[in-house]
Amino acid sequence: MSAHPRLSMNQATLKYAPLDEALRLVVAGGYESIGLWREPVLDVGLAEAARRLGDTGLRFSTYCRGGFFTMAEGAARRASIDDNRRGIEETATLAAAGAPGSTPIFVLVAGGLPEGSHDLVGARERVADAIAELVPDAEAAGVTLAIEPLHPMYAADRAVVSTLGQALDLAEPFDPAVVGVAVDTFHIWWDPEVLPQIARAGASRRIATYQVCDWKTPLPADVLLSRHYPGDGVIDFASLTRAVEQTGYDRDIEVEIFNQQIWDAPWPEVVARTAESFGAAVAPHLVASVTA
Amino acid sequence: MSAHPRLSMNQATLKYAPLDEALRLVVAGGYESIGLWREPVLDVGLAEAARRLGDTGLRFSTYCRGGFFTMAEGAARRASIDDNRRGIEETATLAAAGAPGSTPIFVLVAGGLPEGSHDLVGARERVADAIAELVPDAEAAGVTLAIEPLHPMYAADRAVVSTLGQALDLAEPFDPAVVGVAVDTFHIWWDPEVLPQIARAGASRRIATYQVCDWKTPLPADVLLSRHYPGDGVIDFASLTRAVEQTGYDRDIEVEIFNQQIWDAPWPEVVARTAESFGAAVAPHLVASVTA
Repeated sequence: MSAHPRLSMNQATLKYAPLDEALRLVVAGGYESIGLWREPVLDVGLAEAARRLGDTGLRFSTYCRGGFFTMAEGAARRASIDDNRRGIEETATLAAAGAPGSTPIFVLVAGGLPEGSHDLVGARERVADAIAELVPDAEAAGVTLAIEPLHPMYAADRAVVSTLGQALDLAEPFDPAVVGVAVDTFHIWWDPEVLPQIARAGASRRIATYQVCDWKTPLPADVLLSRHYPGDGVIDFASLTRAVEQTGYDRDIEVEIFNQQIWDAPWPEVVARTAESFGAAVAPHLVASVTA
Repeated sequence: MSAHPRLSMNQATLKYAPLDEALRLVVAGGYESIGLWREPVLDVGLAEAARRLGDTGLRFSTYCRGGFFTMAEGAARRASIDDNRRGIEETATLAAAGAPGSTPIFVLVAGGLPEGSHDLVGARERVADAIAELVPDAEAAGVTLAIEPLHPMYAADRAVVSTLGQALDLAEPFDPAVVGVAVDTFHIWWDPEVLPQIARAGASRRIATYQVCDWKTPLPADVLLSRHYPGDGVIDFASLTRAVEQTGYDRDIEVEIFNQQIWDAPWPEVVARTAESFGAAVAPHLVASVTA
């Protein structure tokens, strides 16, 4: 089997597959790259996970995920910052174990409003503070922190960073090699400012990673699980992908899907469908395809 | 019973109450104002509805709703434009029948992507075209069109106008007496630009109506029904209400709730709870209260 050379399987798409299975299936599916999640990596241990990743010859595209640091100062915040520091180190280790072209990117999901809080402005300020605190660690480790804006429907309980423009504002004080953004079609497709903000992200070299999946209604009862294969919904992958490519972005592109039906499907089928949907909906709009 | 003098009951909060019942309950609850919906008005006929409204002595705050004009040119689009023209006339008739202080405001919900379309940019252009087409009718009737940005989670299937900034961009070419915006806390609370955009709306005299209800997670299976009484969720009514008031907005403020449990509750209880929640969560931040 084959897959587009820039396609990377985000491990969350194969949520229930242990690391070994995910690696084996992705290699068998002809992929060249994978994005890993902390839990399955730490389930086998970092050193062992890095060794197994290295054995596959796959590139490592991103590590998901850090963040969740909107709480006020105190023990919980200190624990979160420390956990993010470990995530940064893990990212560096895994990227070093991956094939050439691996990218040491640690994706940050900000976290929602603390329980009982109405102070969205304050929560956002604490995100900025946390990033500032983590920057020296990321820089020392050679890791890029990718601030991921999440769809505004998650603003209360998952991520107070809601637009690409806001993520770029947060990133701006820092070296773009150290703080960038995650551009995920599902989260930003609706934004009237999406194309100028992608251009802005490109101009400041902030697009750490480009992730694709689709939006389709009606939303499922758990809106966290409303992501679909590219092409199965309403997102215009042509305009978004071209906009990202036009910035000079030339890294791997991940497909990250949270969807109970897809999680419950046979894993080889998911690997194949992911490659097919990427090939049909996204690949035609990549620079190499467009100029070929 | 009493209610804040600027509180207006949006009829959708009493979805299953016929017009007569809604009017009677709102008067009994001590309200001075009501926002009406087309379906229950047309159920009894416009002239009769206007007569009954006039008999109550209530102010009329808004008429919900027009819009749904994202489709390409053709019979369906013509039917939508014609229907909006009727809505404008109905708005004028009802506002004339309401007590002094009534406001002839017709709320516009843009509509989602046409079936099978991925062209969000094109759908948004067709919204602009439709508004331009309706402006002469609204101006002639003395009606203000209120473009309502809806939460981005509705961008695909209900409203391609997703932010206050976008709504203001759409309104900008026109006289603010003819085209304004609806500022609804539920739809815009998450927006990092919300406070500057409220200020911008005020500076251009575009805030046609301010509507309040709350956001709470987890969202229900039908995300359309996820609106709550002010104070029951995470929205910061203090900062948003003060920002609106600081623009000089001095009209009625509607509580509009789509929520199956609230719809199923006894209507007098809903009328009372709405007034109580408004009194507790919103009223303390109104100018008269702040400066009193």
